[in-house]
Amino acid sequence: MTTTTSAPAAVAVAQAYFQAWSAHDFESAMQLVDPHIVCLAPAGRIEGSDAFRAFMGPFVDSLERTALVARYGDDSSAVTVYDTDTRLVHDAPGAECVRVRDGRIVWMRIIFDRLPFRDAAG
Amino acid sequence: MTTTTSAPAAVAVAQAYFQAWSAHDFESAMQLVDPHIVCLAPAGRIEGSDAFRAFMGPFVDSLERTALVARYGDDSSAVTVYDTDTRLVHDAPGAECVRVRDGRIVWMRIIFDRLPFRDAAG
Repeated sequence: MTTTTSAPAAVAVAQAYFQAWSAHDFESAMQLVDPHIVCLAPAGRIEGSDAFRAFMGPFVDSLERTALVARYGDDSSAVTVYDTDTRLVHDAPGAECVRVRDGRIVWMRIIFDRLPFRDAAG
Repeated sequence: MTTTTSAPAAVAVAQAYFQAWSAHDFESAMQLVDPHIVCLAPAGRIEGSDAFRAFMGPFVDSLERTALVARYGDDSSAVTVYDTDTRLVHDAPGAECVRVRDGRIVWMRIIFDRLPFRDAAG
């Protein structure tokens, strides 16, 4: 694991972002998201922090457990891999690759399996 | 990106593994997979290199394009994020978190979205 006191800049932002949303403090997490974020999500491209909030908020609301699997990166980019249990789906891991500028996430590639969520939704 | 000539041990293995399968050289990739690998895949737990080969082989066969998004890690673990186009699904990214021992991958958490593959399969 790579969370040291001297984490590279993007790793520190990824860590703070993850710690906030995994603690259900979504507003603190959003403080680390650039207003003009571009997020490549399984369902497609999401542009801007309002659309990103609408995408990520319901997921954070549904969290029952979050565990860090790995976090690595450098001053400009970082990758976080995590497990979650959500109300709809247990064992729902995710991976986020972020690019950070001026302390905020400006780009994200987020990867997770939508299939169990669709199956659970009926 | 973190592919330097002095990559940490697990990063070097993750890099060689990715380069082999993305070049359709799946047998070389399998040389880096421990016979007793445990792989946590979207559909569940896969144990042993024979089962892993049956899981990963058809995906590699179907590859039309692969691009590295990020690779980070240390001597024991590494994370690779990539984009792919496959015959069935275009824009099918994946993330692999691996643990490496004695030059081979002994554990993998692989994350991808199964939904477009099921939709494409009908």
